[in-house]
Amino acid sequence: MHRPFEHAVIVGCGLLGTSLGLALRNAALVRTITGVGRRGSPSVKTALDRGAIDRTSDDAARAVSGAPLDGSPAAVSPADLIILCTPLRQFPAIMKAIAPALANGAIVTDVGSVKSQVAQWAAAFLPAQAHFVGSHPMAGSEQSGPDAAKPDLYQNAPCIICPNPAAPQATARIVDLWQALGARTAEIPPDLHDHFVAAISHLPHLTAALLVNTAAETPAALALAAGGFLDTTRIASSDITMWTDILLTNKDAILQALDQFTNHAAALRNAIAAGDSAAIAKTLTDARQVREKMLDRRKPVPPPGDA
Amino acid sequence: MHRPFEHAVIVGCGLLGTSLGLALRNAALVRTITGVGRRGSPSVKTALDRGAIDRTSDDAARAVSGAPLDGSPAAVSPADLIILCTPLRQFPAIMKAIAPALANGAIVTDVGSVKSQVAQWAAAFLPAQAHFVGSHPMAGSEQSGPDAAKPDLYQNAPCIICPNPAAPQATARIVDLWQALGARTAEIPPDLHDHFVAAISHLPHLTAALLVNTAAETPAALALAAGGFLDTTRIASSDITMWTDILLTNKDAILQALDQFTNHAAALRNAIAAGDSAAIAKTLTDARQVREKMLDRRKPVPPPGDA
Repeated sequence: MHRPFEHAVIVGCGLLGTSLGLALRNAALVRTITGVGRRGSPSVKTALDRGAIDRTSDDAARAVSGAPLDGSPAAVSPADLIILCTPLRQFPAIMKAIAPALANGAIVTDVGSVKSQVAQWAAAFLPAQAHFVGSHPMAGSEQSGPDAAKPDLYQNAPCIICPNPAAPQATARIVDLWQALGARTAEIPPDLHDHFVAAISHLPHLTAALLVNTAAETPAALALAAGGFLDTTRIASSDITMWTDILLTNKDAILQALDQFTNHAAALRNAIAAGDSAAIAKTLTDARQVREKMLDRRKPVPPPGDA
Repeated sequence: MHRPFEHAVIVGCGLLGTSLGLALRNAALVRTITGVGRRGSPSVKTALDRGAIDRTSDDAARAVSGAPLDGSPAAVSPADLIILCTPLRQFPAIMKAIAPALANGAIVTDVGSVKSQVAQWAAAFLPAQAHFVGSHPMAGSEQSGPDAAKPDLYQNAPCIICPNPAAPQATARIVDLWQALGARTAEIPPDLHDHFVAAISHLPHLTAALLVNTAAETPAALALAAGGFLDTTRIASSDITMWTDILLTNKDAILQALDQFTNHAAALRNAIAAGDSAAIAKTLTDARQVREKMLDRRKPVPPPGDA
């Protein structure tokens, strides 16, 4: 049976990496999967137990080389697909470590939420014989770790791929890969991606945390919080390290989005202070209409008629 | 069978009013329920069809008096319970209208999200022989209208009651009423209530709308928005009139909460701009810990042991 890839190395066996292993396995897209994680870490053990990976190492370069590993004495072919699934700040060290071990034509991708900085790291640290194509599957949850992993995490999830203009074939293979996992792919350059996600993902994350910290100034109020407050701030319970890294690696776009938000807040503040009910109603109506359009867009498209 | 109230008048047959009628009925807390709404309005018809009310009028004073109504030729006793369930801005006109018709000892309450302004209106417009006790059941959804009503809407919902110091007995009856409907009551003075809900309800509503309007500045980003964005902004689809009224009637507390939020946002902006990962992580960790404490508090309390 033909498989698109022979040997995939997943670096980082958390929620995203372990789900990816399960999904690649289910779709039979790769023969061998090696998971990289800290020696003796419970994440790697869980990923192995769940069948998301076949072999494991704490040495990313050795894993990529295909050499025998502790507990996996048989050598396998060098990795032709490497997927970085750790927090973003670990990417430079991992890229430097695997660089000498990368086979000719190996494709490196990632699942990070920021793309410009990652593309810059790849240009600086990966060798010319390998191809980097960044990807960002917009899946996940406030949960983390391999226990929360599931094989259909990427099914129907939007997945942005940042084309590598110097490697159109590698780009196409990464697009095919995500589509084979059921993701809805879109090809968008890194800088545009970073502005998009700042607005629709990173800023909402920030404001959820800010809302909780604002409410915490009135401790007695927290006891009264209805389900709506907990729903609105759900993402404030996400992984701290991952999010600190995101905020730092997408700094410029996030600061711009935060400033836009602050301008909207100042305008609404003025309308409330002035008792301007028409301006308040317009702000709320604008938001409701935009949101309803978004909901409409998510509805399945009916099949075309016979006419 | 003894019922706590003989004749309840529900003014406004939307989601909250109709749900209240269904709940009062299910709990057998009142003999007769009259619903007040615009003549021929589909809301009133739905509330009648669903059995939430027995009789209906577009004239609040006549409904309260117990006089015969179109379609309900029998007179009933004057209302001993009146519940205002319209948008807040209609309260003054309704209070003025029903004032002459209120029986001695009648209790007026409401389900509005703001309490200081409502208490001031009651003091100004209701006669001395009636007792006003404000209440705020924290239930509802982004849906509205009597079709969305359900008899268990208030079950387990927090419900804040603002005691009327001049009418302790009426206050106790309103507390009993909400407890009989399954709500978890708390007695809090109006000004404190308004600061609490500004932080945990009104501010999150504002920021949801602001997030949507900020994202709308990058229209292409909206097409990519994952479920998280729609979840976070769910309340931005709520009823516009109701929310405009809330923002205007709780102006001072909301402006204060918005300013606190803006201060938190400015501090986080500085931390991101300075690349201060420790400060960013602390902000996110604080929020996560507060939220987790809130979730713990919502877990059912285990029964006490035998010891």
